[in-house]
Amino acid sequence: MAKNFPKRNEDFSAWYNELAIKADLAQNSDVRGCMIIKPYGYSIWEKMQAVLDEQFKETGHVNAYFPLLIPKSYLSKEAAHVEGFAKECAVVTHYRLKNDENGKGVVVDPEAKLEEELIIRPTSETIIWNTYRGWIQSYRDLPILVNQWANVMRWEMRTRLFLRTSEFLWQEGHTAHATQEEAIDEAKKMLEVYADFTENYMAMPVIKGVKTANERFAGAEETYCIEALMQDGKALQAGTSHFLGQNFAKAFDVKFSDKDGQLKYVWATSWGVSTRLMGGLIMTHSDDEGLVLPPKLAPTQVVVVPIFNNEEQLNAILSKINPIVAELKKQGVRVKIDDRDTQRPGWKFAEYEFKGVPVRVAVGSKDLENNTLEIARRDEKTKLLVNMEEVLVYIQNLLIEIQSNLLQKAKNRLKENTHSVDSWEEFEKVINEKGGLVYAHWDGTTETEKLIKEKIGATIRCIPLGNPLEEGKCILTGKASAQRVLFAKAY
Amino acid sequence: MAKNFPKRNEDFSAWYNELAIKADLAQNSDVRGCMIIKPYGYSIWEKMQAVLDEQFKETGHVNAYFPLLIPKSYLSKEAAHVEGFAKECAVVTHYRLKNDENGKGVVVDPEAKLEEELIIRPTSETIIWNTYRGWIQSYRDLPILVNQWANVMRWEMRTRLFLRTSEFLWQEGHTAHATQEEAIDEAKKMLEVYADFTENYMAMPVIKGVKTANERFAGAEETYCIEALMQDGKALQAGTSHFLGQNFAKAFDVKFSDKDGQLKYVWATSWGVSTRLMGGLIMTHSDDEGLVLPPKLAPTQVVVVPIFNNEEQLNAILSKINPIVAELKKQGVRVKIDDRDTQRPGWKFAEYEFKGVPVRVAVGSKDLENNTLEIARRDEKTKLLVNMEEVLVYIQNLLIEIQSNLLQKAKNRLKENTHSVDSWEEFEKVINEKGGLVYAHWDGTTETEKLIKEKIGATIRCIPLGNPLEEGKCILTGKASAQRVLFAKAY
Repeated sequence: MAKNFPKRNEDFSAWYNELAIKADLAQNSDVRGCMIIKPYGYSIWEKMQAVLDEQFKETGHVNAYFPLLIPKSYLSKEAAHVEGFAKECAVVTHYRLKNDENGKGVVVDPEAKLEEELIIRPTSETIIWNTYRGWIQSYRDLPILVNQWANVMRWEMRTRLFLRTSEFLWQEGHTAHATQEEAIDEAKKMLEVYADFTENYMAMPVIKGVKTANERFAGAEETYCIEALMQDGKALQAGTSHFLGQNFAKAFDVKFSDKDGQLKYVWATSWGVSTRLMGGLIMTHSDDEGLVLPPKLAPTQVVVVPIFNNEEQLNAILSKINPIVAELKKQGVRVKIDDRDTQRPGWKFAEYEFKGVPVRVAVGSKDLENNTLEIARRDEKTKLLVNMEEVLVYIQNLLIEIQSNLLQKAKNRLKENTHSVDSWEEFEKVINEKGGLVYAHWDGTTETEKLIKEKIGATIRCIPLGNPLEEGKCILTGKASAQRVLFAKAY
Repeated sequence: MAKNFPKRNEDFSAWYNELAIKADLAQNSDVRGCMIIKPYGYSIWEKMQAVLDEQFKETGHVNAYFPLLIPKSYLSKEAAHVEGFAKECAVVTHYRLKNDENGKGVVVDPEAKLEEELIIRPTSETIIWNTYRGWIQSYRDLPILVNQWANVMRWEMRTRLFLRTSEFLWQEGHTAHATQEEAIDEAKKMLEVYADFTENYMAMPVIKGVKTANERFAGAEETYCIEALMQDGKALQAGTSHFLGQNFAKAFDVKFSDKDGQLKYVWATSWGVSTRLMGGLIMTHSDDEGLVLPPKLAPTQVVVVPIFNNEEQLNAILSKINPIVAELKKQGVRVKIDDRDTQRPGWKFAEYEFKGVPVRVAVGSKDLENNTLEIARRDEKTKLLVNMEEVLVYIQNLLIEIQSNLLQKAKNRLKENTHSVDSWEEFEKVINEKGGLVYAHWDGTTETEKLIKEKIGATIRCIPLGNPLEEGKCILTGKASAQRVLFAKAY
C-alpha cells in the first residue's frame, strides 16, 4: 500500500498529494480543479460537520438553504466584494443543450441564452442579503442567526486536494444584528467555536487573530481568523469570521425600525470553514507511514484483526472477541472486526496503519491461551499485551490518551516553530531556513506588507488577539511599529 | 397570520403556495425557479435527511461527494440519458467576469471561455460512472454502495415550491454490482427503504410499482417508484429507484474481472428522493388552518404557552412547568416554552396552529390552582384538561397517537379515492369528477399511453408491484390487456 511512498522531509508536497489519494480520502476529477471526495474522506468530513452543526445550534443558529446561482448584477452591488470575486467566477450563460446538426453529440443551444448571466456562488453574502431585505422590518426580527451547508465555486488556477479546489464544501453563517457591538460579538463568538473545534476535535492548535486590511475578506470591515501550523513549517488559514459592518445592508438596502422608531441599516457577520480543514487535519498529524487521525474524528477508532489459519481458530477468537466488541460499541466506540480471509494479517496491519485507524487490536490463538490481546497505537507506533479483562477500560483510556497526545505534540511543534526576530536578516534566515511562524515588527502599511511578500513569499497571517503592544521598528522599512505581527509562508 | 388564507376546496393550488410561504417553509428567489428554503422548512428537511441517512447506512451504504459540474461530452455517452436531460441543463461557458469598460458593473470576460462547456449536474450517473471506471477492477471491488447528498439543477419552465424547482436538494444513491440479480435486488431494497420512510415517518402511504417504458428514467432498464395521493386527488411521484442494467457501464467502459476470470460489464442502480417530499408532506396532512406535521418530523413537537398578566404569574407558571419540560426534553421530546410578552396567547395559538406544531400546552393561573394543563392536538383540533401528574405519559402517548392517526387518515383517503373502471366513459368521469387513483386496463403500448394523456391529462403512475393478472380490454383501444395499471393526474 505505502510502497515508494514519499517522505515528508524529502518532498512534503508529494507526500501530501499521494497520502490524500492513497488513503482513499479524495481524488482529482476530469473537471478542472474539482475533486471527488471518496467515502473514507467524506466520513471524516461528516464527523466534522456533525460536531460543528451541533455547536452552531447550541449557539442559537439555524440552518437554511439559498440558491446556488446568483444574478451577475448582485455581485456588483458591493464594490469590494465584486473586486474580490469576479475574477474567479463560473458563469452560467445558457439553459439548454441541443443535438448537434452534424450528429456530433450535443451543443449549447444559442436560442437558450439567459438575459442576465448567473454566477455559481463563490460565497452567498449577496443573495442572502438580497433575501434578508424581505425578512427584516423591525428590531423584533433581529438577530437573524442563519447557517448554510453548501458547495461553492471559485475558479482557482492552481489547485490541490482539499486545500484549494474550484468547488469545495463548506458552511457559511450569515447573521444580521441591530447593533454594531452585537455583530462584533457574534463574529468573535464564532471564531471561538472554530478554535474550540480545531483544538478539541482536530487536535490542531490555532492562533486566533485579525487579518490586516490587505488580507481581509472582500466586503468585510474586520476579518477574524484562526491560523494553524503545518508540519512543513507553513501556516494554514483554517477558518474566518467576518464583521461586515453595514456594507451589505447598504448595498442591498436592508433597514430596520429600531426601538427608538428610527430606520437603521442592519449590521452583519459571516463566517465559514470548509473541506480545507481536511487538508489541515492531514498535514498536522500524519507521518511517513500514512494517515494519523485523532480518535474523535476517525471513522473507525478501533480495528480488531483476528489472526487465524482456519475457521475453527477464527470462531474461537470471535467467540472471545465479539462480546468485547459489542460492549465497546455500546459505549459509543467506533470499532470493527476485519475477519476477511482474502487478506493476510500483515496486509491488514499496513492498511489500517496507512488509513490512520488510532487503535489496532490483534488476537491469535496464543492470545486466547494467555487471555491477552495485542494493542497497537497508531500515533506512537507502540504496542503491548493487555489482559482481556482490562481491555475495555484500557481502550477507552487509550482513545482519550491518543487524542490528547496528538494535541500536545502539535502544540509543542507550534511552540518550537514560533520565532521572534528583530531584523530583516534574521527574518530572512528564519523564513528561508526554518519556516514556522515569525513574530516581527511591521510599519502597518499595505505597501510594506506587499513588498515583504514579494521579497520572501511570507505574508502577515494575522495580528493575534490580545497581542501585547511593544514599540519597535519595522523589519523592512525601519519605521515605527506598535506591535509585532505574525508572519509565515502559507497555504 | 392566516387571514384570507385560501381554502383547499376552493383553490388547492393557491392554498399550497401560500401555505408553503406563510408557514415559513420556503420562498421564491429572484433566480428563476430556484427557491430559498427557510429555516423552518429546512429543519423539517434535516429531520428527513437524518432518518434516511441512517437507513442508508444501516443497509450498508456510505456517502461520498462528486463534482457539481459535468463535462458536456459525458452527457452524450449514454444515448437515452442525454435525450432526457440535455433540454433542461444550466450550462457554464466562462470562468471569469471583468469590469465593464463603460463602468456598468461586470461583464463576462470573453477571453475566459471554456474549451468544453460544463453542465450543472441534473443527476450524477455520468460523472460517477466515469469515476467508477477507476475504482473497479475485480469482483472484489464490488459491490460499491455509495450515496451522495447534493444539489442538482434541471431548468424547469413551470416551477412550484418544493414540487418542481430548477435547483433542488436530494440524495442520489449510485451502486455497482457484479450480477444483474444483485442490482435488481438493490433497486427493490431501496424502494422499500423509501416506502418505509414515507409511511412511518411522513405518515404518507404510497403505492409501490414500476414505471412504464415511457415514464422510465432516461438510461434505466426499469424504474421502480412510490406514488402517493394528495388531498386534491392528484398523485405525487415521491421517490424512484432505477435498475440501470449495464447501460452506464457500457457507456463509460466499466468492466471487472469476475471470479471465473472473465471481463464483464458492471451492473448498476441509482435511486433518489428530493425536497419534493416536502411538498408531499404538506399536501398529505395540512388543512385550511395551516400546516399539519407528523410528530416524527415536526421541528417542535410540543409548544407550551404560559398565560400570564405579569411577571409574578409567569414565574409561578414556569416554576411548575419547567420541570415537566425538562423531563420531556430528557425523554427526547422536542418541546419549547414560548413565554414572550411581546405577543398575546391568542396570537401564539394561531401561530403554532398555522405552523403545524402537533401538541400545544396552555397553562394559566387557574390551571395552577386546579393542578391541570390544557392540551390541544393539531391534527383533530380537540383539547382537554390533563392532570399535571399525568402529563408526561399523556404527551408521549399523544405524540404516538397523532403520528398514527395521520397515517390512518391518509390511508383511508387513499382507499376511498382509489377506483377501478372498465370503460372510457367511466374513466373520464372518475378522472374529471372525482380524481384519485384509477385502476384500468391498458393495451401496453406507449402510443395508447400518450393518447390517454393527451385526451384527459392522466398518466400511468405505475404498474403496482404484485399486481394481479386479470384479462381485460384496454379502456381506450379495446385491445387485449393482461392487467390493470394505475392511472392518475399527477404533479
